[in-house]
Amino acid sequence: MNIKEIAVIAKSASIRLAAVKTDVKNRALNEIARAIRQRSDDIISANQQDLSAAEKEHLPMPLLKRLKFDEGKITQVIAGIESLITLDDPVGQTLSAIELDAGLELYKVSCPIGVIGVVFESRPDALVQISTLCLKSGNAVLLKGGSEAAQTNRILTEIIAEASETAGLPRGWIQLLQTRQDVAEMLAQDDYIDLVIPRGSNEFVRYIMNNTNIPVLGHADGICHVYVNADADVNMAVDITVDSKCQYVAVCNAAETLLVDSGIAESFLPKVKIALEEKNVELRGCEKTAAIIDVKPATEEDWSTEYLDYILSIKIVDGLDEAIEHINRYGSGHTDAILTSDKDKAERFMALVDSGNVFWNCSTRFSDGFRYGLGAEVGISTNKIHARGPVGLEGLLIYKWKLLGAGQTVADYSGPDVKTFTHRKIK
Amino acid sequence: MNIKEIAVIAKSASIRLAAVKTDVKNRALNEIARAIRQRSDDIISANQQDLSAAEKEHLPMPLLKRLKFDEGKITQVIAGIESLITLDDPVGQTLSAIELDAGLELYKVSCPIGVIGVVFESRPDALVQISTLCLKSGNAVLLKGGSEAAQTNRILTEIIAEASETAGLPRGWIQLLQTRQDVAEMLAQDDYIDLVIPRGSNEFVRYIMNNTNIPVLGHADGICHVYVNADADVNMAVDITVDSKCQYVAVCNAAETLLVDSGIAESFLPKVKIALEEKNVELRGCEKTAAIIDVKPATEEDWSTEYLDYILSIKIVDGLDEAIEHINRYGSGHTDAILTSDKDKAERFMALVDSGNVFWNCSTRFSDGFRYGLGAEVGISTNKIHARGPVGLEGLLIYKWKLLGAGQTVADYSGPDVKTFTHRKIK
Repeated sequence: MNIKEIAVIAKSASIRLAAVKTDVKNRALNEIARAIRQRSDDIISANQQDLSAAEKEHLPMPLLKRLKFDEGKITQVIAGIESLITLDDPVGQTLSAIELDAGLELYKVSCPIGVIGVVFESRPDALVQISTLCLKSGNAVLLKGGSEAAQTNRILTEIIAEASETAGLPRGWIQLLQTRQDVAEMLAQDDYIDLVIPRGSNEFVRYIMNNTNIPVLGHADGICHVYVNADADVNMAVDITVDSKCQYVAVCNAAETLLVDSGIAESFLPKVKIALEEKNVELRGCEKTAAIIDVKPATEEDWSTEYLDYILSIKIVDGLDEAIEHINRYGSGHTDAILTSDKDKAERFMALVDSGNVFWNCSTRFSDGFRYGLGAEVGISTNKIHARGPVGLEGLLIYKWKLLGAGQTVADYSGPDVKTFTHRKIK
Repeated sequence: MNIKEIAVIAKSASIRLAAVKTDVKNRALNEIARAIRQRSDDIISANQQDLSAAEKEHLPMPLLKRLKFDEGKITQVIAGIESLITLDDPVGQTLSAIELDAGLELYKVSCPIGVIGVVFESRPDALVQISTLCLKSGNAVLLKGGSEAAQTNRILTEIIAEASETAGLPRGWIQLLQTRQDVAEMLAQDDYIDLVIPRGSNEFVRYIMNNTNIPVLGHADGICHVYVNADADVNMAVDITVDSKCQYVAVCNAAETLLVDSGIAESFLPKVKIALEEKNVELRGCEKTAAIIDVKPATEEDWSTEYLDYILSIKIVDGLDEAIEHINRYGSGHTDAILTSDKDKAERFMALVDSGNVFWNCSTRFSDGFRYGLGAEVGISTNKIHARGPVGLEGLLIYKWKLLGAGQTVADYSGPDVKTFTHRKIK
């Protein structure tokens, strides 16, 4: 099958999946959990093949660790599915209801988006999470995982498809793509695919954003800032800077630039330098920073670089508004924090910084679906429409308008001496 | 100024506008209403220039009528502004609030999208409606109206900008583009413009959708269907078909194709033919239709044609599922109606037809922001994300996540023997 044929089947499955009742979807989730448990030996053995191949190709240790899918991971993904079963069905919720006139009722009702294309990194557990989130929200899904995980992804998809179709889901609601070329062809299927969610490197996400007419949900850069206002608590500022930069450097919500108010620079910078250098962070500073502490000089490029590494750029600013301006100019709209004891300044920062996540006196690393209590996360969005910040199930939903009448025509409501609308809320 | 400079100014204004308080926005709306009233002579005289030019170019009468901006229209747009003032501020609403842990609170708060580019048809009242909706929702706006209305649009923009900036809004939050070339350049400003709303011909909307990386909200085609199920009330079916087709043929929610169940075709078709021919509707039918009533033959192309005229294509289908399949294949996801006395069939139709608006026993012409009680409408969307169907103020909003802490780091919540999240709802 070519990718268009795959997409056509997914579209057709998505229509039927949208109308599948809650108990059938939950039964399918149960069957999937059961089948994953039952076939765990096959899964682990497929994963062993991927791991040996990856070792032969000398994949770095962190990648190997993410690729590994063992008993522990299997228990985790099954627990995830079980918790998904307990959630209310997000489809078919009445979001608003209004009587337009007696016997003419308008309902705004949540429904699935349709067909979601997801391109994800090498963790095979992501495949299970994403596909079961799509199932619960009634969306068909085309998946493309990292090629290192090919065998594991193949068997997981097979198990999920088989178990869910036995439970009554439409054939083809979940399908796996094989190659990068498949992804390129998927991006052209805007007649059949409604949303693409890419996860992976900045370059890859940007390539997807620039090469499709399908809406894309996600983020390329994560250039996050910590701004230390003049009245910040210095010890708190040191702790939060260290956490924001170092708690996990390779992720999108790690801080890349530290903005320091000139009023606190002399007391704060020497302390934060010691704390960061203990963690082996390389510091790059503006000229004013270099006048206070010993740092490499930062260039213009540093302000728009996502290091994803033990490197931090530092800039001294004159007051809140310069910090806000810097963030809106160089940031990526992901996550930015202000450290201050002044509520008004915090509020001004959170109102004027145009980012999906704006924090006061806490670490940028909190910007995450699990920490936000959203359950599993489909990704973090820096889009300005639909869904922003960490996106859970609700990002996979839209709504339709249902109007229930008894023969009404618009002519009855047009012109002089006609019926008028009541527009009375009924929910 | 070139378009990039205009967009940069709008972006900068949008940041400040996002934080403008409700009373300042309402004062600005009041000032705009006052200034439009005060300068009504200037507006009418500018409109006279546009009208004379248009008459010289022999614009068709319906276009001239839409172009006209007289005392009546002025009274209408002022009434619109006054009703907008009475609405709650949609910005700053807390959509959810959750305590992640003691002293660490997460708020999901509504906020403006940013900079909206709107391309609209020749009605100058649209300029006032759209710009005041953007103001109330805290969005900056770049406007491009029909060139026939150039003088009217120029003076209206001037009045709105002056009045609102005097009331305290940031300079450049509203700006008018002049030419089609300006629009093409606007579409390249994806660093500064967050959403484009095109209104106008199908070809024009499709051109915009295919030529920008900025998200586009709107619709190209409006291929709407009426499906008459076997158990429909024949008289109701005739009335609704006539209304859906003829009440206003030139608009997107007028029906273009009539699907008739084979079980009712012989009783229904002759009656609907008489009623439609009274309105001078040309009928084009499938072979089975032609075997019952005298119609021109419909071609494959007819099923995907939006006539916007007194023409209706007719197809006989065998049952509900064939109707659903036809609509999902040839429709545009806009508005589709089923006529049936069977609730289960209606529900199946509304669940499986993948359109923004799905109706039971009423006319497709109800699909409209005013009739839905949304107040003014920014457009009708056939998108599958963000906003669907008639879109009012809420389509101009997104949200940001605000996290308020007291020094928390993620390290405190990571690893063994650590703090755990409470995830307790606080609203």
